[in-house]
Amino acid sequence: MTRFKTIGIVGIGLIGGSLALEIKKRGIAEKVVGFSRRHSTLEKAKTLGLIDEYFINFDDGIKNIDFLVIATPISAIKEYFLRINKVYPSILVTDVASVKEKIVKEAVEILGRDSNFVGSHPIAGSDKSGIEAIQKNLFKDKFVVITPCKYTKEENILKIKDFWESLGAKTILISPEEHDRLLAITSHLPHFIVYLLLSLLEESNNRNLLLSCIGTGFLDTTRIGKSSPELWAEIFIANRENLLKYLSKFEKILSAMVKILKEGNIEELTRKLYSFKKIRDELNGEIKNI
Amino acid sequence: MTRFKTIGIVGIGLIGGSLALEIKKRGIAEKVVGFSRRHSTLEKAKTLGLIDEYFINFDDGIKNIDFLVIATPISAIKEYFLRINKVYPSILVTDVASVKEKIVKEAVEILGRDSNFVGSHPIAGSDKSGIEAIQKNLFKDKFVVITPCKYTKEENILKIKDFWESLGAKTILISPEEHDRLLAITSHLPHFIVYLLLSLLEESNNRNLLLSCIGTGFLDTTRIGKSSPELWAEIFIANRENLLKYLSKFEKILSAMVKILKEGNIEELTRKLYSFKKIRDELNGEIKNI
Repeated sequence: MTRFKTIGIVGIGLIGGSLALEIKKRGIAEKVVGFSRRHSTLEKAKTLGLIDEYFINFDDGIKNIDFLVIATPISAIKEYFLRINKVYPSILVTDVASVKEKIVKEAVEILGRDSNFVGSHPIAGSDKSGIEAIQKNLFKDKFVVITPCKYTKEENILKIKDFWESLGAKTILISPEEHDRLLAITSHLPHFIVYLLLSLLEESNNRNLLLSCIGTGFLDTTRIGKSSPELWAEIFIANRENLLKYLSKFEKILSAMVKILKEGNIEELTRKLYSFKKIRDELNGEIKNI
Repeated sequence: MTRFKTIGIVGIGLIGGSLALEIKKRGIAEKVVGFSRRHSTLEKAKTLGLIDEYFINFDDGIKNIDFLVIATPISAIKEYFLRINKVYPSILVTDVASVKEKIVKEAVEILGRDSNFVGSHPIAGSDKSGIEAIQKNLFKDKFVVITPCKYTKEENILKIKDFWESLGAKTILISPEEHDRLLAITSHLPHFIVYLLLSLLEESNNRNLLLSCIGTGFLDTTRIGKSSPELWAEIFIANRENLLKYLSKFEKILSAMVKILKEGNIEELTRKLYSFKKIRDELNGEIKNI
């Protein structure tokens, strides 16, 4: 396990705060330093013992750390690349964003082809956000996708891989472009669709009766619809091309299934549902076995 | 609490079996009698103590009971109405199907306007089915929709209401037509859409990588996709008109949201997501308060 002298974390929300918690707990760094736009968050993180110290001034703070994790919303990452470039462009740095092509491209453009940036995306999260949502063992047994590009140095990939594994995660290497395509299917499109399922409840006729017809199935299915609209609007826009491609595919499947339903073809409908259920039944087993 | 001498249950699956369990546990009937097409299920139910006895021959068994619950798949209900009509048309009877207009209509047609049938639908279930899936307290604090029509006798509504409440459920009266409209929104359309979300995983390119990009959000959202294809194909077909109406509405909303995404209008996208998230955030609170 690589131990760091000082790890800096920008953005102490669900991911950044849970990262700080694990780094401290597992003794992965001698010191954890926090950065955030919100002073109150930094104070809270210090009180909770998540960080040892914090800096309001990023330029001052970054000089004393040897590994930086950017755990801000997507829209703020570019700004931090620009700041890093100004004072410490050679620092080892990763991020945790749910989209990677845009971020890795910006890192190369701003920090240079020779930088020590490696993109990461832990497949771990919650419908809750902010420092109040931090969780113990958030990364344990979870996959973290590491997304090197052609400029990424092998030694940095190993360092980042080692870092996530020291938090109990399993790592997997996927190109930034392929990551975004796969995440459109497994995460971005499902979030988009779940928000729309909720929109159907907007009708006001017999609202109390409507609510009494909601069971645990609906609640479980739409749990991710409680997620932060700002974070998700940014993800949808950043991965727009893949999302639109799979939404178009989804619309075609929907239209084909509506046709089967209109025809009242119960044999074909049952056969289709079987093939979809089979995919879901196999998931738990397959995910464990990878 | 009304106590029955003998309650008969047709179909000892998740709902029928869990019903038997609660009836025995709470002493609601002196005797519980089971009916099923499968002899092995009846034997198992008897071994588990869910039922006191069973009959292979429905016509023989029904004569000795004073309240019958039909807990079979939708497609078998009509057949039981015909059998009841042959030997004991005046028996107090309810069902537990997820669609009501069709069932209530068939009951009136077959058992007559003067029958003692009252439709019920417990908003309780699981993605699992069969006698192996039975649960303790399945109906506790859950809503049961009772769906009287213009011919339903007041005294029978009260008996059925009392029956479900004695199992710990909350009851609510909704017309069969309105029940089916509301359930299309809260249950049938979400199930239909979740099956389609799963279909996107069908692609075989990089399948192992795709699976490692699946998080708890996707698993929770698609849990109901493990449900029985036969049961759900029957529900979709039986509530086809309402389902098609709301699927058409869903397609329109989807198309409007795709347009916003294509335009890259992040402010409008965020505003929309906020309005949908708000609906979900309010649900838990509202459902508890009804």
